[in-house]
Amino acid sequence: METNVISLQETIKNLLKNKKYATLRDILTTMNPVDIAAIFEEIQNEKMPVLYRLLPKDTAADAFVEMDEETQEFLIHSLSDTELKEVLDDMFLDDVVDMIEEMPANVVKRILRQSTPEDRKQINMLLKFPEDSAGSIMTTELVILRPDMTAEEAIKRIRRTGVDKETIYTCYVADNLSKLRGIITIKDLLLAEDDTKVCDMMDTNVISVTTLTDQEEVAEIIKKYDFLALPVVDQENRLVGIVTIDDAVDVMQEEATEDIQKMAAITPNTDTPYLKIGIFDTWKSRIPWLLLLMISATFTGMIISSFESALASSVVLTAFIPMLMDTGGNTGSQSSVTIIRALSLNEIQFKDILKVIWKEIRVACLCGVALSAVAFLKIMLVDRLLLGNVAVTVPVAIIVCLTLAITVVVAKIIGCCLPMFANKLGFDPAVMASPFITTIVDAVSLAVYFMIATNILGL
Amino acid sequence: METNVISLQETIKNLLKNKKYATLRDILTTMNPVDIAAIFEEIQNEKMPVLYRLLPKDTAADAFVEMDEETQEFLIHSLSDTELKEVLDDMFLDDVVDMIEEMPANVVKRILRQSTPEDRKQINMLLKFPEDSAGSIMTTELVILRPDMTAEEAIKRIRRTGVDKETIYTCYVADNLSKLRGIITIKDLLLAEDDTKVCDMMDTNVISVTTLTDQEEVAEIIKKYDFLALPVVDQENRLVGIVTIDDAVDVMQEEATEDIQKMAAITPNTDTPYLKIGIFDTWKSRIPWLLLLMISATFTGMIISSFESALASSVVLTAFIPMLMDTGGNTGSQSSVTIIRALSLNEIQFKDILKVIWKEIRVACLCGVALSAVAFLKIMLVDRLLLGNVAVTVPVAIIVCLTLAITVVVAKIIGCCLPMFANKLGFDPAVMASPFITTIVDAVSLAVYFMIATNILGL
Repeated sequence: METNVISLQETIKNLLKNKKYATLRDILTTMNPVDIAAIFEEIQNEKMPVLYRLLPKDTAADAFVEMDEETQEFLIHSLSDTELKEVLDDMFLDDVVDMIEEMPANVVKRILRQSTPEDRKQINMLLKFPEDSAGSIMTTELVILRPDMTAEEAIKRIRRTGVDKETIYTCYVADNLSKLRGIITIKDLLLAEDDTKVCDMMDTNVISVTTLTDQEEVAEIIKKYDFLALPVVDQENRLVGIVTIDDAVDVMQEEATEDIQKMAAITPNTDTPYLKIGIFDTWKSRIPWLLLLMISATFTGMIISSFESALASSVVLTAFIPMLMDTGGNTGSQSSVTIIRALSLNEIQFKDILKVIWKEIRVACLCGVALSAVAFLKIMLVDRLLLGNVAVTVPVAIIVCLTLAITVVVAKIIGCCLPMFANKLGFDPAVMASPFITTIVDAVSLAVYFMIATNILGL
Repeated sequence: METNVISLQETIKNLLKNKKYATLRDILTTMNPVDIAAIFEEIQNEKMPVLYRLLPKDTAADAFVEMDEETQEFLIHSLSDTELKEVLDDMFLDDVVDMIEEMPANVVKRILRQSTPEDRKQINMLLKFPEDSAGSIMTTELVILRPDMTAEEAIKRIRRTGVDKETIYTCYVADNLSKLRGIITIKDLLLAEDDTKVCDMMDTNVISVTTLTDQEEVAEIIKKYDFLALPVVDQENRLVGIVTIDDAVDVMQEEATEDIQKMAAITPNTDTPYLKIGIFDTWKSRIPWLLLLMISATFTGMIISSFESALASSVVLTAFIPMLMDTGGNTGSQSSVTIIRALSLNEIQFKDILKVIWKEIRVACLCGVALSAVAFLKIMLVDRLLLGNVAVTVPVAIIVCLTLAITVVVAKIIGCCLPMFANKLGFDPAVMASPFITTIVDAVSLAVYFMIATNILGL
């Protein structure tokens, strides 16, 4: 699929260079707007307006919506006012708002000037909602029916007004005061008798959100109930818009990316694709966490320093530090990441914490026994026999394996508790992933290591 | 929302105990099937069939689909053959297939016995597709139109046959040989003149997948093009089914969970929620990676052992090992996780590898300089002055900071290259995340550390 688009790009570039406009038009007619947008993003030069004017009218706006902001901005500068107006008329308002948010002020002014007064009012209203709220991702173009309409009247209304609506598949029933009374699908309307009243068929148990509901919650509700769209009401329960599933899917993906970035100690940036982010922005999203984690490693260093004399008399102990630290970090991360994901999928809540800890302890014991047994064999067979390191004695192996088992249990408990407490306290649990868990577990495991060592070896 | 469901659960349990069936029926009528299913999962006992029989007919099947397998199995055992048949008749075939895949053989037999011969044939066909293929998640219940129908005829057909179809919003146009010719939405049909022919309105640039296409690719296409459904054809291009967006959303979420689990060195298990997985299964999904990573730490141990004499004469160097290892691991993870996510969102391809490396090197240099500078200050001010460790000299600080800077650059290069090569070689790049990167970077950073130390300190 990718390959097709790429080779097609070359063809289109060549045809454009050779001014084969009729052929280009034929090719563009067969293409999906998403793929057309990809080609515009690639060529992005003074030939772009020529190519854009070759697009069929109804495809032009669809392709425009799919382009990245850079390409959109470039294109807007070369469009006439009339052309811009045509594009804007064909776009859904939520897409116009998304675009405006990324554009420089002069372009925004031009866009608003070309919009109809009614659209301008709606755009300004939508722009006021906080980022990440239902209001900021909703569209105001929806089909509204009255409770006393018949199925036939409702279908007629949809046929008359539907062309400008983002979805006609779910219709919303509101009374004269715009209060949301029920929802009805076009499927219900089509399958009903002509004279059945809307209010007798509509579903009155409507699940809705307010304009200020967090977009993550909106996406979760849409996913949970398999909705195609979710109604949004204002503080007075008046219907003001809907969030459609395509926007919810984008939110879900953004949230997953955000979680993944946080888990790797990166300040989330989900708006811009990797290659388009400048290196200073990338640096800024990574360095604070690295610094914080580096400074926290001071404690681990202090633990080692305080056992320096013990280490000096038994340097062999140092060789096992990386293995103990890494295994502790890995076991802790496994638990924390599992718990973070389960929390974000609503599979567990804070009230399950005892069940979670009990489960992790049992898994940790199984892991601890297996790892210690293998480590003991490895130390005696590889380190002592194969590599011939005579300092690796049975007591040393016992110290390492005992530390390993304790570390695994502690790491799994910390790994499951921290995200749950973070969640309870209203922080994002995703921050409590590998890097933080590793730093804490390191300190614990080294302290345990040296305490056992000084006791067993009498250092 | 959660709280509501939970307190409602108590009410329903009490009403059930007191046999207030009329009240229960009233409550259930106002509820969404998804929430009803949650209540059944909670009560799961001999009272369940009683409650189930109180559900309105059309809600019963919808609620049944949403329950987990355990609850479904429990309920099937207590339903009569006629009741089971009613449920099955109301379910979509893809949901029946999903359910059958999780049920024991005797339940499967009972389900197949109660299905119509036509459904049984379809179910058996769907069961044969490989797991994770488009065929395994598609539904065969779709609206098929003929090219020469008029808009009026098409709408009539939809009204006649639509009730059993999973979606009526996108209709598929196929010829007599079942070859897929085009698609048309019900919006187009409703907004068209009555006598316009379907073939004159339909979109002939149909994007479709085959039954064997991977479900991840299916979900990506649906997301990319904002489809509500995607047609599935067999090897002869005959239309056999559609994948609807609700199933694609589930796939997307599963794939994100899988990636997250792999990044934390866990063998993915996305079918079962956290609390329902047995501890042995959890252990089995975690221990292989822990063992593998623990064994690989042997190399780090060997590096330390070979510099044992240097360490014995300058034990202070040991105190900085955890900080160097952790920072190396964290910087490497940041790059690898960013690249893994960008690969899975198709933001980058293998051909971008030079751009990626060049970007990561520049970011690494910025990070390396910042981290080294802060580390130098911290070592001199905290470790030497504040903690009064006289062994911490300027040369030691220089060794640590130089190693730190080199480690950061190496870690970022390894972190971005390994996932890209894994992807190129057809492996899942998600495995090349924190744990593996950390193990490799540990060895590199320790080797660099001791080499610089022996040279500068002349050990």
